[in-house]
Amino acid sequence: MWGVADKGIEHRRDPRQQEHDVAGDDFSPLRFADDVVWILDQTRLPREESWLECRTTEDVAAAIRRLSIRGAPAIGVAAAYGLAVAVRRDGDSAYDDARALLAATRPTAVNLRWALERADAVRAVSGDSLGEALLALARELHAHDIECNKRIGAHGARLFRAGDRVLTHCNTGALATAGYGTALGVIRAAHAAGTLDLVWVDETRPLLQGARLTAWELQRLDIPFRLVTDSTAGALMARGLVDRIVVGADRIARNGDTANKVGTYTVAVLAHRHRVPFYIAAPRSTIDPRAASGADIPIEERDATEVTTVFGNDIAPPGTPALNLAFDVTPADLIAGIVTEVGVLEPPYEASIATALAHPGMR
Amino acid sequence: MWGVADKGIEHRRDPRQQEHDVAGDDFSPLRFADDVVWILDQTRLPREESWLECRTTEDVAAAIRRLSIRGAPAIGVAAAYGLAVAVRRDGDSAYDDARALLAATRPTAVNLRWALERADAVRAVSGDSLGEALLALARELHAHDIECNKRIGAHGARLFRAGDRVLTHCNTGALATAGYGTALGVIRAAHAAGTLDLVWVDETRPLLQGARLTAWELQRLDIPFRLVTDSTAGALMARGLVDRIVVGADRIARNGDTANKVGTYTVAVLAHRHRVPFYIAAPRSTIDPRAASGADIPIEERDATEVTTVFGNDIAPPGTPALNLAFDVTPADLIAGIVTEVGVLEPPYEASIATALAHPGMR
Repeated sequence: MWGVADKGIEHRRDPRQQEHDVAGDDFSPLRFADDVVWILDQTRLPREESWLECRTTEDVAAAIRRLSIRGAPAIGVAAAYGLAVAVRRDGDSAYDDARALLAATRPTAVNLRWALERADAVRAVSGDSLGEALLALARELHAHDIECNKRIGAHGARLFRAGDRVLTHCNTGALATAGYGTALGVIRAAHAAGTLDLVWVDETRPLLQGARLTAWELQRLDIPFRLVTDSTAGALMARGLVDRIVVGADRIARNGDTANKVGTYTVAVLAHRHRVPFYIAAPRSTIDPRAASGADIPIEERDATEVTTVFGNDIAPPGTPALNLAFDVTPADLIAGIVTEVGVLEPPYEASIATALAHPGMR
Repeated sequence: MWGVADKGIEHRRDPRQQEHDVAGDDFSPLRFADDVVWILDQTRLPREESWLECRTTEDVAAAIRRLSIRGAPAIGVAAAYGLAVAVRRDGDSAYDDARALLAATRPTAVNLRWALERADAVRAVSGDSLGEALLALARELHAHDIECNKRIGAHGARLFRAGDRVLTHCNTGALATAGYGTALGVIRAAHAAGTLDLVWVDETRPLLQGARLTAWELQRLDIPFRLVTDSTAGALMARGLVDRIVVGADRIARNGDTANKVGTYTVAVLAHRHRVPFYIAAPRSTIDPRAASGADIPIEERDATEVTTVFGNDIAPPGTPALNLAFDVTPADLIAGIVTEVGVLEPPYEASIATALAHPGMR
């Protein structure tokens, strides 16, 4: 559907699907049962809610590559399950190949590397029970991410004032995480606190995660929103219709420079001109201690057909060349604050990020 | 196709179509023969080149409303033909109703009003031969617009330096005018002069005039280009990949504030941050002497389904509310120059625009 060949993973409606309320706090876009990683196929949303039955690491890696599961925190958790599946199925010797396969799926979201390095640490001490230990880790990361997001939501909601109209880009909700959401978690918490008036949802071309996924989540959560094309954000701010901006992150450098879905930088530049506070919301697992600045963050370039087609239909003449940068980097000087599970980090970010990373608690 | 009902105008391949080389300087998206206004149906591009056979003013007005013909200069010329058709078919008494019908089609592009006021002036002196006089006016505006665009191209091309990579938004080529194009005319002229390296084409959601129409024209003109989503412009400028920006206009106020396709303002703000020169290219008929500033320019709001669908497919869940602003206003302080047929106007625009309007020659 999105120009990526289906790798032959089985699609089906999970019989247990009815147990899960997608509007509830406990909704997660992936789960593990009986040695199967079930992944909600987000490429089919909002038209269809179908789950991928992933029995091998390759199934999980393919689901990540084709964006059936996406969003930096969700990718990290999925990768942890993908490693557990490999070792439980094929033994300890399967670890290295499975790790390499998962590591190569997507280059920008650092949570993937973070989860794999957590697994390396588990492996180093696990002895004979690596499969069990990796599954326990995956479940821990899963639960931890939801807990982080709820804390992010609580910290972020305190930034809001009554009547705020917030703009967001891409999808950062339960679908992009292990559950609850990062930037959309902040928006949920502000809505629960009664301070949110409206969410402006950027459609987020090329893959329309805003139109397809954020709209889908907000509708289920009964939070008032309005969809706009990405190029409308400037006109909204010029008319004074945006009070606050909250977006997620795929990787944050030590100086606060932040890679996120392409178009985020544009929103930040507009916000700066209009003095609209621009916030990042992300767990500390999104911070890359090895990246000094945005220049150290690799930016994924995806297939041009994601730009030249929409739902499989050509939108440009045959043979049209296109550039498809999946992410851009927003420099720290445009960011009013980074909302994490340990609080809102403020400039200068070198200091506040270092303090946050040293904070106790699993990162 | 674009969420606007087809008004029952006949589509067909014009037998004379083969005479017209769409890559040539003489290509025009509309023409008049045997009391029919033939209009290329741009909603069907790039998939199909079909022409609308417009025999009545209502046919022409419907073609403007549904964007079969669009672009401020092209709308002005089409309206002039639409008035001529009414009077030639139904007599002088048809003038007022036809004028009112055309005036109500689209609110932002001022060239429409300008053409109708030119027709009013012709009517005041035409005596018994109003139909012939209006047809002569339409043909004069048609030829004049092409001549203006070639002069705009020549003036604009002198702004380029060897190797320039230019970014443009929406479609401003032969399709948006009586022929040749405004901003795309500048790009054609720069390409002919050998100073153009590459055109970055914003796809221009919601109706994708960049992806569908500008890519189609550039392909036929054999000018190198690359398509990007609208939200990629910021990343391109941050990487130093854009040397110059040229866009068109739907209405220019006396102080230089310019209404153009939504997203233009965002490009201008990004250009300002990155010190990339941002130019408007438009004939003087796009200047509204009655608008003191952008605050006086009405902004068309179009149907939400243009945002929530692409080629008739829903991209968001059913019931998703959307806002569809068709244009935005770029303040004069972000504009490096306004390229007109009488030269490049520079700040302060109050003075340079007043001088340009007083310049001899038909405006």
